[in-house]
Amino acid sequence: MALIVQKYGGTSVGSVERIQAVAEKVKTFKEQGHDIVVVVSAMSGETNRLIGLANQISEMPTPREMDVLVSTGEQVTIALLSMALNKLGVDARSYTGPQVRIVTDDAYMKARIQEIDTKNMRADLDAGRVVVVAGFQGVDGSGNITTLGRGGSDTTGVALAAALKADECQIYTDVDGVYTTDPRVVEKARRMDKITFEEMLEMASLGSKVLQIRSVEFAGKYKVPLRVLHSFKEGAGTLITIEDTDAVEQPIISGIAFNRDEAKLTVQGVPDIPGVASKILGPVSAANIEVDMIVQNVAADGNTDFTFTVHRNDYKKTLNILQDVAKQLGAREVKGANDIAKVSMVGVGMRSHAGVASKMFECLANENINIQIISTSEIKISVVISEKYMELAVRALHTAFGLDADDKDGE
Amino acid sequence: MALIVQKYGGTSVGSVERIQAVAEKVKTFKEQGHDIVVVVSAMSGETNRLIGLANQISEMPTPREMDVLVSTGEQVTIALLSMALNKLGVDARSYTGPQVRIVTDDAYMKARIQEIDTKNMRADLDAGRVVVVAGFQGVDGSGNITTLGRGGSDTTGVALAAALKADECQIYTDVDGVYTTDPRVVEKARRMDKITFEEMLEMASLGSKVLQIRSVEFAGKYKVPLRVLHSFKEGAGTLITIEDTDAVEQPIISGIAFNRDEAKLTVQGVPDIPGVASKILGPVSAANIEVDMIVQNVAADGNTDFTFTVHRNDYKKTLNILQDVAKQLGAREVKGANDIAKVSMVGVGMRSHAGVASKMFECLANENINIQIISTSEIKISVVISEKYMELAVRALHTAFGLDADDKDGE
Repeated sequence: MALIVQKYGGTSVGSVERIQAVAEKVKTFKEQGHDIVVVVSAMSGETNRLIGLANQISEMPTPREMDVLVSTGEQVTIALLSMALNKLGVDARSYTGPQVRIVTDDAYMKARIQEIDTKNMRADLDAGRVVVVAGFQGVDGSGNITTLGRGGSDTTGVALAAALKADECQIYTDVDGVYTTDPRVVEKARRMDKITFEEMLEMASLGSKVLQIRSVEFAGKYKVPLRVLHSFKEGAGTLITIEDTDAVEQPIISGIAFNRDEAKLTVQGVPDIPGVASKILGPVSAANIEVDMIVQNVAADGNTDFTFTVHRNDYKKTLNILQDVAKQLGAREVKGANDIAKVSMVGVGMRSHAGVASKMFECLANENINIQIISTSEIKISVVISEKYMELAVRALHTAFGLDADDKDGE
Repeated sequence: MALIVQKYGGTSVGSVERIQAVAEKVKTFKEQGHDIVVVVSAMSGETNRLIGLANQISEMPTPREMDVLVSTGEQVTIALLSMALNKLGVDARSYTGPQVRIVTDDAYMKARIQEIDTKNMRADLDAGRVVVVAGFQGVDGSGNITTLGRGGSDTTGVALAAALKADECQIYTDVDGVYTTDPRVVEKARRMDKITFEEMLEMASLGSKVLQIRSVEFAGKYKVPLRVLHSFKEGAGTLITIEDTDAVEQPIISGIAFNRDEAKLTVQGVPDIPGVASKILGPVSAANIEVDMIVQNVAADGNTDFTFTVHRNDYKKTLNILQDVAKQLGAREVKGANDIAKVSMVGVGMRSHAGVASKMFECLANENINIQIISTSEIKISVVISEKYMELAVRALHTAFGLDADDKDGE
């Protein structure tokens, strides 16, 4: 018998029929003898409907009132799911965020959880009840309703699991687990049984949008085993957990992430003196443009090239900013391209295996793919290449590193 | 400068445009220097939509969860109205029932208010803010969400006015006041400027469905002046208040109520012995049938006739029950009719004026209308007549008692 926190997203509870299906699923777990806390999102479409109403009134609706408004979405779902459970003969009780007392700071629309009162939930669990909690919402110290920002229901699930010291936090989604790479691009992509928090963070931030990144950070911090599963298909999903240091052999590479959302910009011939980087990035950041990769080469003849990537939507805006900056700095030229793709190999096994990078570069060279930028971290190697070669690169690397589904032993 | 509680119903806040119109109205009052607390219902249709979702899951949804579900309706409205006020530059803050701490008993779906914490509202009013409160809802002593039952937003308005010792509670509706009788039946029906709580109670219970009867009781008990007004038309509406004993002359009759929802049943030739009434009404009440008028004549030759009225929907069921009862009692016969109407004249002035009843009966006789049952209270005379004469009777009485719009002086 275990204590399990289950989180079902908007699509999983998107209709009365689906809510009833979730209730059946919860009942099965309950009958296996587990204690169950269920966290739910608003029914899909509901949050957008509510935001639509607010936007008819104001382009900039009061943040406090936005949270009062959108938090009704999850409140509807907890009531309906509890009714559905009761209808199946399962004793269940719903809680809004404020009713649990999920205490947050007062940053409306992007609040952070500070404390969770587990007293009521514990009493219900002890009485044999399923506890149904509204995701995404909390209450500040003054009693105001807050929300954690979009997708925050994952965070609620993990935070409740941490507070209750649950054995596992299960996140039900519309995919049956985390894959070595996107199955739409690589047919032979394989569901991973297990992945570490660190790897998942690298995968998530690189575009494998299975989980909210904040919830993974949270789970890692509090060491809550996290499992990604399909809402309506059988299967063990993917367990995200701490690194298993006792494992005989870690796979070198866990997965390959990629995205084509970025554009690169290079300021050429910048004087190699202190403060240049901040002079270039200062105005970019002041314009609220987020920067991803940053690369600067060793200087030659007192000048250097400074390259970084931004979201593709910000490409033109950034280019304009850089023209001005380049003049002030006396730089030679500003160049850029938005037809690029970033491909990243992620794996904790990389730490103890030399030669991953050279093998990656060799593989790409064999396919005649030119590498434009390279950036590495302890468990990740990212390269920027021409967008048109992206699928080819991902497939070639997937095979080369033994990730293909018919090659289960790995390297 | 006064403290005014304003309540806007579902139709008044039925769309974003209407919510914006309400915000404009509130702004005008605020600019006149008043302190304003606004109570709102769910947008029209929303409560039914939510109930529809629940009924898809269960014909008998858990009452606790029903309240969690339907209370979201008002929560949406308070957020949108507060945003609309803010957009107009009016500082406003929303409160759910639990946030105010409108404490109720734990009778889900029909809770009664026990206590209201005015601290937060007072602080907001003192800070110059408009306070926007969700009607219809509260919280029990254990933190569970409760609702007051349908139409309960009126009660919230009155209860807040009582707790805050407001100068007036204004109920905005789709009529511009309380009329001497139904204007659809009597063209010359006249809006009353003023009516007493007692009169309003008699009018309301008899089918003038302008206000929730519970809210009138509540207002009377706490002596909260209550004003019924049209949401979007100018006008002073009707003030419902305590009896003005200093008035030189009260009008004898304030209004005429009527309904055709009832059926009458008579058990003839009942032995006139103690316990008969309860033997007749016991089985009726056991079948959950509500009885309205009850009349028993003085006995002649040891037997009497016992007559009462029920809702027309319960007519057949009651008739069947009475057949059995009549046999057991040795009664002669059971008779009934469901083509009847009840017409009631209401007025506190009746107390001090003799001859109202005889004038009423004379007026009906002049129109050749036969009276089937008569029942009186201190401020009301009700008669049951054939349904087909109802409009004629109401019009004749309305004229005879000087209520017509072109006859403003009264009797």
